[in-house]
Amino acid sequence: VRSDPFSSRRCRVALLGFGTVGSAVARRLTAADTPFQLTQILDRGAAQKQRAAPFAGVSWTSQIEDILLSDADVVVEAIGGIDPATDWIRSALVAGKSVVTANKQVIARQGAPLLALAARQGRQLRFEAAVGGAMPIVRAIGEGLAGDRIVAIDAILNGTTNAVLSQIEATGCSLDAAVRSAQARGYAEADSAADLGGDDARAKLAILCALAFGLRVDASRIPAVSCAAIAAADFARARPRDATIRQLAHADYDRRSLTLTAWVAPVDVSAASLFGRTVGPQNAALITGEYSGEIGIFGAGAGGAATAVAIIGDIAAIARDRAAIVPAPALTSNFILKTSDVVFQTWPPVAVEVAC
Amino acid sequence: VRSDPFSSRRCRVALLGFGTVGSAVARRLTAADTPFQLTQILDRGAAQKQRAAPFAGVSWTSQIEDILLSDADVVVEAIGGIDPATDWIRSALVAGKSVVTANKQVIARQGAPLLALAARQGRQLRFEAAVGGAMPIVRAIGEGLAGDRIVAIDAILNGTTNAVLSQIEATGCSLDAAVRSAQARGYAEADSAADLGGDDARAKLAILCALAFGLRVDASRIPAVSCAAIAAADFARARPRDATIRQLAHADYDRRSLTLTAWVAPVDVSAASLFGRTVGPQNAALITGEYSGEIGIFGAGAGGAATAVAIIGDIAAIARDRAAIVPAPALTSNFILKTSDVVFQTWPPVAVEVAC
Repeated sequence: VRSDPFSSRRCRVALLGFGTVGSAVARRLTAADTPFQLTQILDRGAAQKQRAAPFAGVSWTSQIEDILLSDADVVVEAIGGIDPATDWIRSALVAGKSVVTANKQVIARQGAPLLALAARQGRQLRFEAAVGGAMPIVRAIGEGLAGDRIVAIDAILNGTTNAVLSQIEATGCSLDAAVRSAQARGYAEADSAADLGGDDARAKLAILCALAFGLRVDASRIPAVSCAAIAAADFARARPRDATIRQLAHADYDRRSLTLTAWVAPVDVSAASLFGRTVGPQNAALITGEYSGEIGIFGAGAGGAATAVAIIGDIAAIARDRAAIVPAPALTSNFILKTSDVVFQTWPPVAVEVAC
Repeated sequence: VRSDPFSSRRCRVALLGFGTVGSAVARRLTAADTPFQLTQILDRGAAQKQRAAPFAGVSWTSQIEDILLSDADVVVEAIGGIDPATDWIRSALVAGKSVVTANKQVIARQGAPLLALAARQGRQLRFEAAVGGAMPIVRAIGEGLAGDRIVAIDAILNGTTNAVLSQIEATGCSLDAAVRSAQARGYAEADSAADLGGDDARAKLAILCALAFGLRVDASRIPAVSCAAIAAADFARARPRDATIRQLAHADYDRRSLTLTAWVAPVDVSAASLFGRTVGPQNAALITGEYSGEIGIFGAGAGGAATAVAIIGDIAAIARDRAAIVPAPALTSNFILKTSDVVFQTWPPVAVEVAC
């Protein structure tokens, strides 16, 4: 009989990065009713940001060593990018911390070895926020549907691009104007190339392929068609067929031929479908299982508050059982990624047709 | 550093009940590629069923003592009903087994004390299959959205009733004919009173209220309006307003006044809405969070194969970490359940209107 090891003190959290996501996490962690204690914030601009956003009992630093040597139980990585985030996540696990990250690029590239390191350390690495914002798709695929054999995933995974495309659809504006509008609303970064071009969705799709199919997928090899050339005229062409255009990420895996078909592209979707009705910075996914059929999930895919929900849920899961063993997935590279003759289908895939 | 305690042998599973759900679980657990080992099946008709469905290496019994004294790691309860299921779940936990159940009545009534017993025993009690079939709503609310403050839940939770209502909608047939059709397709029990009357959905809603709001709700006190009097004429009346009729379960909790408003009733829903488009034995839910807004989830809500997906996912979660501590929720009875002046709204709640 084991007693609850957390009754004695609150779970201590250190935060790396005080941007849109990091500051939203900090606000939640320092609210009155939280069962967690934010102890440290690391940010390059710690000195100035500390003055603008003082939190009682929180120390600020710009040195990762201060975090690694601290008594934090959980390190939240919200700096983004590959370098130095990958090293810092690894160092935090080595230092005995559990890690929660929103970093799709790091998880897509180094998720498996980092999860193996976490398991060896008896610590946890959680990344619900890396895919789908507040939409709990990592748990849905990795745990909820672990009892099924998933055969296909179709999803809107980039909230920025979806906000841009649905804005063009609604107003007939130019892509540039829609991007500026998304930036003004806080849905788009200063540089939206990774969103529109598909790099962001490819990284997220690679993570889902690991969870759903057990495959180690190089995101940069997933065929992608950019949305950067989409214009109001494309929507006007789609409308008479009751269709609209969305950036869709698709993956299906044929276990007999060991063939993965995966792509990210703007495709025609039925306006009345789940994807056609997904507007603004929302995400949506349809997961097809051999036994359960289609399972759908949708919700806020971007924004600091939504991403903070996923991060705080991960902290709560770690705090519930700091001694939990989460074994690393055994990923295989023994498969064929179909890269030539890939057909970007309309959705639902009634007719084969390249949208643009 | 802890090593994986499961590399040495497969997780051993004993199954209580060999009906629709139990037999689907048994087929999955005895498939070639399963990481689990089905060791025992308990069924009242063990002698006959064993002849009809022989599984290599599985022993059959009609005595619960055989299960309690076995070396099974996990007991799957798929007999349904309150008695003897409640006692058997309790006895299995006392005997040191983890338990997976699809039993909404037991979890709605005795979930909190059984979870507390499981935590004291250092074992797990999981019940994803008790609500929503293959739709992973228990994880979505209990874990994925644990980082949010949930304010409302609207859901289709009874697949049988949804199959009946959407059949009347599609064909204009009588309710009796739709019930017989659902029975013929395996979506309805011989007695559909608990489905149409709302008892099944009330039990599931009580479970979701515990997960989302931390409230101990007596399901039998949740106001309910039966669907047993719905006829094709009701759908004909709704159609000119682009509406249809669904059995909806609703709960919202006002944390300032400690007031829970909850009900199960047939209500008008927009035909184009998530709920209006949910047909057949599907389930669907919209969860409204203070920080993430609306999160939606939908999927197969009934049927042996879909329910088995949820059960096997729970077994997998237990097998991943047999030593995990899942603390019991701290539920409060310090709230007011609004029972008079409850208004059954249309959905979306644009206008107050009782559907039938």
